[in-house]
Amino acid sequence: MEPTGAESGATDSGATDGKSGVSRRTVLGAAGIGVVAGLAGGGALGATVSSPREEDADQVVPFRGDHQAGIVTAAQDRLHFASFDVITDSRDDLIDMLKRWTAAAERMTRGEETQEGGALDMGDYHPPADTGEALGLSAAHLTLTIGFGPGLFGPSAANPDAKDRFGLAHRKPAALADLPAFAQEKIEPSRSFGDICIQACADDPQVAVHAIRNLARMGVGVVSVRWSQLGFGRTASTTQAQQTPRNMFGFKDGTANIRAEDTDVVDKWVWVGAEDNPPAAQWMTGGTYLVARRIRMDIEPWDRANLLEQENIIGRTKGEGAPLGKSAEFDEPDFKITSYGAPIIPATSHVRLAHPDQNGGAQILRRGYNFTDGSDGFGHLDAGLFFIAFNRDTFKQFVPIQHVLSRKDAMTEYLIPNASANFAVPPGLKPGEWWGQRLFEK
Amino acid sequence: MEPTGAESGATDSGATDGKSGVSRRTVLGAAGIGVVAGLAGGGALGATVSSPREEDADQVVPFRGDHQAGIVTAAQDRLHFASFDVITDSRDDLIDMLKRWTAAAERMTRGEETQEGGALDMGDYHPPADTGEALGLSAAHLTLTIGFGPGLFGPSAANPDAKDRFGLAHRKPAALADLPAFAQEKIEPSRSFGDICIQACADDPQVAVHAIRNLARMGVGVVSVRWSQLGFGRTASTTQAQQTPRNMFGFKDGTANIRAEDTDVVDKWVWVGAEDNPPAAQWMTGGTYLVARRIRMDIEPWDRANLLEQENIIGRTKGEGAPLGKSAEFDEPDFKITSYGAPIIPATSHVRLAHPDQNGGAQILRRGYNFTDGSDGFGHLDAGLFFIAFNRDTFKQFVPIQHVLSRKDAMTEYLIPNASANFAVPPGLKPGEWWGQRLFEK
Repeated sequence: MEPTGAESGATDSGATDGKSGVSRRTVLGAAGIGVVAGLAGGGALGATVSSPREEDADQVVPFRGDHQAGIVTAAQDRLHFASFDVITDSRDDLIDMLKRWTAAAERMTRGEETQEGGALDMGDYHPPADTGEALGLSAAHLTLTIGFGPGLFGPSAANPDAKDRFGLAHRKPAALADLPAFAQEKIEPSRSFGDICIQACADDPQVAVHAIRNLARMGVGVVSVRWSQLGFGRTASTTQAQQTPRNMFGFKDGTANIRAEDTDVVDKWVWVGAEDNPPAAQWMTGGTYLVARRIRMDIEPWDRANLLEQENIIGRTKGEGAPLGKSAEFDEPDFKITSYGAPIIPATSHVRLAHPDQNGGAQILRRGYNFTDGSDGFGHLDAGLFFIAFNRDTFKQFVPIQHVLSRKDAMTEYLIPNASANFAVPPGLKPGEWWGQRLFEK
Repeated sequence: MEPTGAESGATDSGATDGKSGVSRRTVLGAAGIGVVAGLAGGGALGATVSSPREEDADQVVPFRGDHQAGIVTAAQDRLHFASFDVITDSRDDLIDMLKRWTAAAERMTRGEETQEGGALDMGDYHPPADTGEALGLSAAHLTLTIGFGPGLFGPSAANPDAKDRFGLAHRKPAALADLPAFAQEKIEPSRSFGDICIQACADDPQVAVHAIRNLARMGVGVVSVRWSQLGFGRTASTTQAQQTPRNMFGFKDGTANIRAEDTDVVDKWVWVGAEDNPPAAQWMTGGTYLVARRIRMDIEPWDRANLLEQENIIGRTKGEGAPLGKSAEFDEPDFKITSYGAPIIPATSHVRLAHPDQNGGAQILRRGYNFTDGSDGFGHLDAGLFFIAFNRDTFKQFVPIQHVLSRKDAMTEYLIPNASANFAVPPGLKPGEWWGQRLFEK
C-alpha cells in the first residue's frame, strides 16, 4: 500500500528550497530534513501546533484512581467501543503494548496527543506520532476503560483452541467466562467476544474515535480490532441532576439505574471485593465486570404498536416515564396495584422483570448508548441500544436477570441481541502503574 | 409482528381502575379509555409532556425561505442522511406524503414533535404520533433538506426499467442524472442512488436520527429507506469564525470551501438560475444539486505513511493546514513555487487538482461529515468522509473536477468511494407551500 515516490510526488518536492518555501518542519516542532524556512511566522506556527489541545480542566476526567474512569463517571454523550483479538503469543510484546497504551491513554484523556512532544514530532520521514484528527479539540471528558476477555487466559468462544499463551490461566478470576446462550438472541461472533476491550466515552465522537484509532494503531502486530461500535445519546444517567435520556423506543432509559453517589450500593453490586477471588486473582479487587450487548431494536414494528402496548411492555408511561399506576418518574413502582384483578404493571413488563425485587435484590450499573448504523438494506433502520453494564459478578447478577428477561419480557419480541461479550475490568491505576500490571506481575 | 394481547400483557392490565391508579391518559393529553386518574398531579404531567421540546430561539433554523436550509446554513455537528425509493406509482399518494412530510419537518425544525397536539396524543389504542426519543431535546439547529433523484422522472441507475410513473419526465432538469463512473471507485448500489433524499443536520445526533425515522415512518407504503448514513464532526466550515474541522486523515478539511457570506460566489456556483432550464423545469430556479459520495478512507495504510508523503498528497501542512510553501491556513496556494525545479505543491496533490484555477474556475460548496461505521471484520475501521457537495450544475462542476481527481489525485490510493448519488434540490418554500409543490403543480 505504501505509494512510490513518483505516485505520491514525495520525491519531487520534499527537498529543501532556501528561496521560496516556508518551513514545514517548524510546524513539526523538530529540526531535520525538509523545506528550509524562508518566511517569518514559522515559530508561531510551531507554537500553535505543538501545544496540546485546549486544556480546560473542566474537560478532563482523572485517568488514575482506585477504580478506572468510565464506570461511575457521569455518562458522556458519545461512545466508541472496541474489542481486540490478541494476535501474538509473546507475553513480552503484549506487556510492552500495554505500557505504551497506558501512557498514550493517560495523555489523550488530558486532551493531548498520543505521544510526548506533540503530534507531528517525528520528522518528515516518519509517520506522524498521532493521527491528528483530534488536534484543536478539547479533552471532551474522554475516559478510556480497559477490560480483559476470557481468551487472555485460555480457550474462549472467540478461540476455542487457544492455549494458555501468556501463563495466566491460574490467575483467571471466577466470574470471567463467556456469556451463556440466552433465549431469543442471534449472536454474531464477528461482533462478539474479544481478548481486550477499550471503552472510549467522550462528549465529542471525534475524540472517542481518535482514541480508539490511535490505540489500535499502536497495537499493530500485537492486537487486531475484532469489532467496534459507535454510540450516541445517553441512556444511563448516574446523577439525579441530569435528565434521563431516552432510548430508541422513545422511553426514558436509566431511571432506576444505580447512582454513583450511592456508594454503598456501588460497593455491593459493582466493585469486586477481596473475598470474591482466590489469592491468584486478587488483581481484580476493586475492579468490575463489563457486559456488552448489541441489542438491535425492531424499530418499525415498535412504531406501529399502540401506546397501551408500548407502555405495558415497558411498565412505565412514555411521556413522564412514571411506573404504571404512579405519577412521577422517580416514584417507586408498586407491583401490587391491580386493575380488575390483573396487575397494572404487567407480569411480562420490563420494569417488573428487571426490578431487584424480582431478582433477589441483584442490581447492575448500566451505561448504554443508542446506536443507528444506517439501514439494513430492507428499508429498516439498523438501530437500537448498545448495552453496557458493570457488575461485581456477571454470573450472579447480569446472567440470571437476563435469563429471566429473555424468557419472559414482552419486550423481547422487539429486540434482536446480536452481539455479546464479558470482560474483566481491573481496578484503577496508582501513579506509575500500567494497564494490567497487577495481572502480569505477581 | 404485531404482538397479541397475551404476549404483550396489554389485555391484562389496560382496563380502568378507579381506586389505585393514576391516570396515564392525562400524560397523553386526551380523554379516553385507560386507567382512571386517582392521584393529583396528572394535570401537571400532561402539561409537561404536551409542551414542545425546549424552545430556544437560538436553536431554531428557519424552515422556509428563498432557499432550503441546510445548504449555506453553518454546518451543524451531526448528520443523518437518508435516501428513499418511492415504492408506489400513485402520484396522489406521493403528493399526500410530501404534504404531510412538509408539515412534520417544519414542526421538527422548531423543536416540536411530528404531529400537532403533542407526541402522545393519539390515545391508548393508537401508536403514538411521534416516536418520542427527541422529547426533552432542543431543536439543535435541525435542518431538513429534500432532494429528488432521477428515478422520479423515469429510468435511473436504481431502477433502469422504471417508467415515467408520475408524469414528470418533461419536467426533469438538465443536470439531474446519475453520476457517471469514475476511476478507482467501488460503488455499491445498495447504498447509492435513490428517488428522494433527506439530509438531516443537527447538533445532536438523536435529533437528526429522530427526524429521519419519523419521516420514514410517515412514508410507509409510499417510500422505503434505500440507505442511510450517519456522520459526525464538521468537515466544512462556512464561516471564517469557526475553526476548520479535521477529516479522518487528520488534516483540516474545508479551508478553501465556498463561504456563505460570499453571496456572489454562492449565486454563481450554487443556486440554479432561470437561464439554466427550459420553462418546464423552472421549478428548480433557486435550487441546487446535491452530490453524495461515501468515501471510505484506507485509514491504516494512511497512518503508516510518513508525514512528507501525507503533506505532499494533500498539498498542505498537517499542523497548520497552510498550503505548502506558505505559512498560514488561509494563505492562497502558490502553485508556481518550486524546489529544485519541482513544484512544492506537487502535480498530484489534492489542493492543486481540486483548485478552481485547475478547473476552469469551477467551485462547489462542500458539506462533508466524518463517519466511522465500526470495523470491517478485517481489523480495519470502516471510516472516512461522507462527502456532500452542492453545485449549480453537477455535470459542469462536480463531475469534471472528480474526473480529474479520480485519475490524477495521489490521495486516490487511500480512498475507496463506495456510494454515489445526485439529487435535484428544489428552492425554499414560501409560507403554505409543500415540498415539491412547484414540481408537481404546474
